[in-house]
Amino acid sequence: MTAVRDLTVAEVRLTPILVADPPLLNTQGVHQPYTPRLIVEVVTADGTTGVGETYGDTKYLELARPFATRLVGRSVDDLNGLFRVADEVAVDASRTSGQVDVGGLRGVQTADKLRLSVVSAFEVACLDALGKALGLPVHALLGGKVRDTVEYSAYLFYKWAGHPEGVPCEKDDWGAALDPAGVVEQARRFTERYGFTSFKLKGGVFPPDEEIAAVRALAEAFPGRPLRLDPNGAWSVETSVRVADALADVLEYLEDPALGTPAMAEVAARTPVPLATNMCVTTFAEIKEAFTKDAVQVVLSDHHYWGGLRNTRELAAICRAFGVGVSMHSNTHLGISLAAMTHVASTVPNLHHACDSHYPWQSEDVLTERLTFENGSVRVSDAPGLGVELDRARLALLHERWLTDDGSLHDRDDEAAMRVADPAWSTPSVPRW
Amino acid sequence: MTAVRDLTVAEVRLTPILVADPPLLNTQGVHQPYTPRLIVEVVTADGTTGVGETYGDTKYLELARPFATRLVGRSVDDLNGLFRVADEVAVDASRTSGQVDVGGLRGVQTADKLRLSVVSAFEVACLDALGKALGLPVHALLGGKVRDTVEYSAYLFYKWAGHPEGVPCEKDDWGAALDPAGVVEQARRFTERYGFTSFKLKGGVFPPDEEIAAVRALAEAFPGRPLRLDPNGAWSVETSVRVADALADVLEYLEDPALGTPAMAEVAARTPVPLATNMCVTTFAEIKEAFTKDAVQVVLSDHHYWGGLRNTRELAAICRAFGVGVSMHSNTHLGISLAAMTHVASTVPNLHHACDSHYPWQSEDVLTERLTFENGSVRVSDAPGLGVELDRARLALLHERWLTDDGSLHDRDDEAAMRVADPAWSTPSVPRW
Repeated sequence: MTAVRDLTVAEVRLTPILVADPPLLNTQGVHQPYTPRLIVEVVTADGTTGVGETYGDTKYLELARPFATRLVGRSVDDLNGLFRVADEVAVDASRTSGQVDVGGLRGVQTADKLRLSVVSAFEVACLDALGKALGLPVHALLGGKVRDTVEYSAYLFYKWAGHPEGVPCEKDDWGAALDPAGVVEQARRFTERYGFTSFKLKGGVFPPDEEIAAVRALAEAFPGRPLRLDPNGAWSVETSVRVADALADVLEYLEDPALGTPAMAEVAARTPVPLATNMCVTTFAEIKEAFTKDAVQVVLSDHHYWGGLRNTRELAAICRAFGVGVSMHSNTHLGISLAAMTHVASTVPNLHHACDSHYPWQSEDVLTERLTFENGSVRVSDAPGLGVELDRARLALLHERWLTDDGSLHDRDDEAAMRVADPAWSTPSVPRW
Repeated sequence: MTAVRDLTVAEVRLTPILVADPPLLNTQGVHQPYTPRLIVEVVTADGTTGVGETYGDTKYLELARPFATRLVGRSVDDLNGLFRVADEVAVDASRTSGQVDVGGLRGVQTADKLRLSVVSAFEVACLDALGKALGLPVHALLGGKVRDTVEYSAYLFYKWAGHPEGVPCEKDDWGAALDPAGVVEQARRFTERYGFTSFKLKGGVFPPDEEIAAVRALAEAFPGRPLRLDPNGAWSVETSVRVADALADVLEYLEDPALGTPAMAEVAARTPVPLATNMCVTTFAEIKEAFTKDAVQVVLSDHHYWGGLRNTRELAAICRAFGVGVSMHSNTHLGISLAAMTHVASTVPNLHHACDSHYPWQSEDVLTERLTFENGSVRVSDAPGLGVELDRARLALLHERWLTDDGSLHDRDDEAAMRVADPAWSTPSVPRW
């Protein structure tokens, strides 16, 4: 029998921060030198603290604040109830109208996507607190791990050696990667530092033939290793099919070559290369059309998109029933989210592909101890909760950076960051090629 | 922080029992006077006991025994691991070959169905033990209830006043129901005793026009109340469409009018009446075809079929994503299963129909206190675990009945029971009408 304990939420702390980000290129522009994240702490009446992490842009913060207020007085084990809280939190209708693109290439913005991304941080924080209170790891709260380690892939980016001259930033030691040789060199570093054995290249940056050449170079340098290419929907159907044909013998899957379910379905019908997505299937409402049209063969789950770890498991169950593969998408994130990703991934039986993670690109974190990759994998923690600990001094420092920023970095804007280097730049319309 | 506790399974007890069952009619025959159930007890190293319940037929028992052996030494919180245990338990191939019908009108028998029905009892027992050990109700282990009571429907059966002359049995006080007036009278008793406000008639017993008349009589006696009719696949597509048309204005849904997904899809395309099923969608493998063909509009979940409460939630998530309704099926069951059904149902947001339950037909139970219906609903327990307690004396008595039976009742056989009254009877081939 258990000791007396009180799972009621007594306090919720929201800490927006700015974390260093290298100059990684994508089809919309380049990562800014600092990117906003939101750290959520849920404190129970008996003093147990759980942590979560999500997007830190203003539109997420504005939802997180009323959400946090409503959470106080509820029990951290009422996880299904979080969605009701989310429904109660009014979404400024103006934010959800039109075809606004969510920072981070999330496709069309909807109130639902924003809400679920906010829920995800609170759900993870509640699970962390609940696990600590019960003495159980988060994976046990999800039914128990089915593997002891979770494999990740090397997330390769075209990148500059540094941010534009004169822009305040942290330096990185990865060097430039702007051609096949640079990409292979980057991949080599990834294998040396972390032991990754599969590779994903963020594409949509250079004309398709250059990116085909980069993937070919990877295939030559790492024969037989799983390779992925992700242009973020930058290509037409014709270009997508052409690239798929050119790389059919080496690709594990092609990720979001074209934008939208109809275009993806057309590409899928014309190539044997499996298509993966984190752009046309990003909410439960988008599944039916995509699955009945056979538009995607692998869904890249992301607990930030889908509303937490339990929804991620439900997504995996749907994929299992429809014979669709599951892998994991990543935007810029810190160690709290990597721990959360690892816990849920360890419980999903049909996770047949290595997960994506930006974590190696993040030199800064808010944990007392960074998570580590060994042979490309993260070991699943059996400690209570997520098994991570906040470094309050680091958190305060990164929050101070957010406080002193003039607001220009409070919302991720890859297009604006690119304009610093190229004043004529604007996000290309799609299909770009 | 929690007290020290040990969640390791130290002992598993399997107790097959025979429980009284009234002479309820269906298209295959009639319920035998006693039906086999299996009571599962999982005892942890620190002495916490969890209980579960499932089918008690020999083929389930034969799988449950090696399963129980393998469970010892595992942790009750390793719920995902139960499916691996199930995979390890060898299934006698001969039991899974051919188009054998599982007792209880479960459609084609497969190894998967048998295995999952066995898993379900162990999963419920583990959840009960885990909840007791952690001081949490089972619904909290499933993310928390979203409603405080779960609504059930009155499960009406054509029935005889008693079992055939000379057959050892318990008496029931429901009387006969063999025509519209009898069905209405039975429904009236259900509302008086339990407050049910929706009604399901088990059909496939009499020619369709007689069953149409019975439903019409119900509609007249209880105007505006949700009505359902379930002939267990006894009808042709033409007959199904004809009945649907005849009752379109009063049916909440028509349940399994015809057998198999293609036939159901044809009926669905020709009637606006929603079709429900617990026969053509009974495993995850059957979902894709049925949903892409729009063959069913409501899935009747059943944790015994689907492998437990967590799988039931996953089924509900799949239905939610595809705009398919969810309700709950029931075979003969006792209070342990009713408690389990109520816990999981309380956590499913998209449960928009009253659940089915045979429980009112079961005069015997293995609990110290029977669960009760108020206004047709069962209150969700907030006590640790399922919130039920085994009555060991009752359990021993019902087990003794199983032990002293000559084996003829160890496997449910509605056809054999009918032959006692009608020696010429054999299960009709379908479509019967």
